[in-house]
Amino acid sequence: MAAIPTVEATAHATAPATAPSARPAMADHRTPLVRNCWYVAGRSSDFGRTLRERVLLDTTVVLYRREDGTPVVLDNRCVHRSFPLSRGRLDGDVVVCGYHGMRYDPSGQCVGMPSLARAPSHARVTSYPVVEQGPLVWVWMGDRALADPALVPAMPWLAAPDWATVTGELPMAANYVAMHENLLDQTHFSVLHADSVGTPAYARSELQVEEEGDQVHLTRALIDSPPPPIYGVPMKLMGRPVDRHSDSRFFSPAGHIAHASIVNREPRPGEREVYRVNITHVFTPERQNSIHYWWFNSRDFGLDDDEASRYLQEASTKAYREDVDALTWIQQTYDRLDGVPPELSFGPDRPGLLMRRILKRLADAEGAGRAG
Amino acid sequence: MAAIPTVEATAHATAPATAPSARPAMADHRTPLVRNCWYVAGRSSDFGRTLRERVLLDTTVVLYRREDGTPVVLDNRCVHRSFPLSRGRLDGDVVVCGYHGMRYDPSGQCVGMPSLARAPSHARVTSYPVVEQGPLVWVWMGDRALADPALVPAMPWLAAPDWATVTGELPMAANYVAMHENLLDQTHFSVLHADSVGTPAYARSELQVEEEGDQVHLTRALIDSPPPPIYGVPMKLMGRPVDRHSDSRFFSPAGHIAHASIVNREPRPGEREVYRVNITHVFTPERQNSIHYWWFNSRDFGLDDDEASRYLQEASTKAYREDVDALTWIQQTYDRLDGVPPELSFGPDRPGLLMRRILKRLADAEGAGRAG
Amino acid sequence: MAAIPTVEATAHATAPATAPSARPAMADHRTPLVRNCWYVAGRSSDFGRTLRERVLLDTTVVLYRREDGTPVVLDNRCVHRSFPLSRGRLDGDVVVCGYHGMRYDPSGQCVGMPSLARAPSHARVTSYPVVEQGPLVWVWMGDRALADPALVPAMPWLAAPDWATVTGELPMAANYVAMHENLLDQTHFSVLHADSVGTPAYARSELQVEEEGDQVHLTRALIDSPPPPIYGVPMKLMGRPVDRHSDSRFFSPAGHIAHASIVNREPRPGEREVYRVNITHVFTPERQNSIHYWWFNSRDFGLDDDEASRYLQEASTKAYREDVDALTWIQQTYDRLDGVPPELSFGPDRPGLLMRRILKRLADAEGAGRAG
Repeated sequence: MAAIPTVEATAHATAPATAPSARPAMADHRTPLVRNCWYVAGRSSDFGRTLRERVLLDTTVVLYRREDGTPVVLDNRCVHRSFPLSRGRLDGDVVVCGYHGMRYDPSGQCVGMPSLARAPSHARVTSYPVVEQGPLVWVWMGDRALADPALVPAMPWLAAPDWATVTGELPMAANYVAMHENLLDQTHFSVLHADSVGTPAYARSELQVEEEGDQVHLTRALIDSPPPPIYGVPMKLMGRPVDRHSDSRFFSPAGHIAHASIVNREPRPGEREVYRVNITHVFTPERQNSIHYWWFNSRDFGLDDDEASRYLQEASTKAYREDVDALTWIQQTYDRLDGVPPELSFGPDRPGLLMRRILKRLADAEGAGRAG
Repeated sequence: MAAIPTVEATAHATAPATAPSARPAMADHRTPLVRNCWYVAGRSSDFGRTLRERVLLDTTVVLYRREDGTPVVLDNRCVHRSFPLSRGRLDGDVVVCGYHGMRYDPSGQCVGMPSLARAPSHARVTSYPVVEQGPLVWVWMGDRALADPALVPAMPWLAAPDWATVTGELPMAANYVAMHENLLDQTHFSVLHADSVGTPAYARSELQVEEEGDQVHLTRALIDSPPPPIYGVPMKLMGRPVDRHSDSRFFSPAGHIAHASIVNREPRPGEREVYRVNITHVFTPERQNSIHYWWFNSRDFGLDDDEASRYLQEASTKAYREDVDALTWIQQTYDRLDGVPPELSFGPDRPGLLMRRILKRLADAEGAGRAG
Repeated sequence: MAAIPTVEATAHATAPATAPSARPAMADHRTPLVRNCWYVAGRSSDFGRTLRERVLLDTTVVLYRREDGTPVVLDNRCVHRSFPLSRGRLDGDVVVCGYHGMRYDPSGQCVGMPSLARAPSHARVTSYPVVEQGPLVWVWMGDRALADPALVPAMPWLAAPDWATVTGELPMAANYVAMHENLLDQTHFSVLHADSVGTPAYARSELQVEEEGDQVHLTRALIDSPPPPIYGVPMKLMGRPVDRHSDSRFFSPAGHIAHASIVNREPRPGEREVYRVNITHVFTPERQNSIHYWWFNSRDFGLDDDEASRYLQEASTKAYREDVDALTWIQQTYDRLDGVPPELSFGPDRPGLLMRRILKRLADAEGAGRAG
């Protein structure tokens, strides 16, 4: 555990890809996507009895649900003539190609072809392991032998009756490394989100950073200070003194979970002492430089407070759209330039740099695995 | 002559381009376009007294008609400063460049330049050999020494008074190999065109396949079976027993001709015994992965039957648009993937595979010619 | 000084890039852009107290004006996380990045970062030398050591009270070499601009061509001939006999200046004897194959003649749009072709060919400088 220095201690340029460097290598937008990971394939409601095409990790897949309700993710290309299966139809649990009627069961095995007397047993498309949990369906697009369902991150608050959740999704034309860095970075709040989540006092509060295996964990406490609107408004504590304990975790290449506890220092009659908020950010690379992004703002108070829900929906959407805009503009800058420009980093960037080293290490390990 | 086996006998993956293979090589969407062939440059009505730009086989040309009516196809780039000649104007039979007024006669020879006292004799653009026949103008974009007008395929029914023709055209963002394969493939009818041309009985009828030089010829007979709507409606024979004799020919990289004879087994008073339909598919690569496609549905019955014409126009357009959609989606799949995915082929694919070997052989021969 | 022969004396193909050639090499659309030059960054009115993004010579910059009125051109990429500075805001003379609040003064030096106790002294963006003169701001994007303000071309008529100017700007999707050649080429007037500036008599008048260092200077006189509408209408001399003395200069890769003196051979009571017109063309490559283009038509007569101004505005816009269209179509032709097609040149192209040799020489010298 280490405090972030408040003056630049580690300022350095991130080296261009071809330059040798003694520093630990860090992922950037050109680093191959990490595949050995449970990513969100979509909301549960994205899976139904009609075929839906989606691109995940540069692979075009088709999403649907079996008659018994189990979600299915198959490669979307018929092995016969490359017709997109999502343009075909469902017959029970079987996907029927729209060109020659080739039939695939949920395991990807071809089980019939109208022009042939028996199904070609060697014909099959990839079926990806999936786990449905709460409002999300998770998919494993990497090495199938490593797809352990126990690794799907638990997010019970998303489905628990004692939590209320507002949620949204935003497509983003940016690489996922920049999005991860954005979510580990608290120093942009008071600039990019000046109107909503950022307060000057919070920006000065001391941050604890821990690297735990392939995760990065941040904790921060801000004692006796009025809350920003994103907390103060739904809690009806604007201008009141609160303690704010928050922690945030980069749990995998698939996302971040943040918890906040707001302690009401001077509760009035009928008020709670502690209010909890969990913010869940999950996102999946669509291609190298685009993302499917879903966010969830969950609270354990005011469960039936429609006004609070409406406010949180609007304020969250506004703030996350600011992030989407920023990351899109940055990606456009990268796209316009030959090669990656050297970027300077400073002390407060340390959580993001730790994450980028982890992502690089994971990507390199997969590359070595593929090469070997 | 060989019957297609009804179970897979020749199932195999089409090898990726770089893999060595003992099997005969087959064209796919990356194979260089065959140029030594009469292709359709356009309908006769596309050639007039205004200049029209068109891209044929990756070459931008300008189409027009001389004062005596002869169609002309010239390279569209002025040799002086690369101005597109189609943006200039016609002066008699001469194309006048819109930038500096350079003048080209229909042979492509420069015959004048306003700023010069005499025309530069070494300045010329390519003029492509053309043959107008019936409603079409054919062009030869390959080795000029091989451009034999006798090789232009005869399609007298397109202009004969005892035939009635409906016609249409569809641009297509797909490579021509897939289109040729589609037209030699009868097993997609009952899936992709379930509502129009496909009948289960027809799908089961036995197909004869002959390779004749650089052509592939299919014949099929279906005895005593009710016709599909595309025949039954205009012939007013829906639900009636007919014999259906059909043959179809991949005549060159430029297209296919299909003939059908429908024999009325139980003619009622005033009815014909035999109805004939010729379906002509001509198409020309615009670029590597796009096509100009024209189709013609000709019949020797009900010549003045406007209702039949309207029905055939609509039903054909619907069916061919289904093909265009399918081939476009497949091309998009190819475009999204690195390299060509291996595809599995089965017994009923044999006509298409024969055609793909022919196209590959023709393309390779031209490549060797260019290299030599 | 040499007269242009009126028959082709130097007709030759411009060699493809890879071909060896004994002839002097000439710039074309693939030649690296010349950077050591004062180019127009924008009109004075483009610089204000809001940040404006612009791409100049393939570099994305941000334009603004200090509180004291001085224009500023900075690199638009924050060195921290590549956020476009133009998406941030101005605080006095300082640009504040919109992501983390990094602050840059007009010299490009970072002077503050909210999350750091002191500004990182090694953080800076490039600030480009600028000179404001009349209605234009000039910028130097090349080797800073060579940025001599004395080299900014003088154009006093653009701001002088005894001249009236109409002006416009047109974006152009074409390389600047073709635009320079267009402006040195008088043989396209009677074709591309048949309705406005071209007259057959003018096309036949003899042109004097001088190469003066890195400039090309053209002079031409046409005695006792009626003026074209672009002169005759605003001077109210249509159909009247005038002498027309004109000269035009390719002054640098940044533009051309043309002067015309129209002598009224038979002045009527109240009429002037001499009318002067200066036409200024300035343009700056945006990227390799696109241009920012500004034009100015200045006259020393009829200063308050709104009707003349309106006519000149409209006629100039029409004529220059014809040039923009022509050069855009030519660029599209280049883009469609693999490699550069050989082009034929003729005697009247000599001014343009001299310019293209100069541009090639300048580009090569910069390339050698960069390599050395």
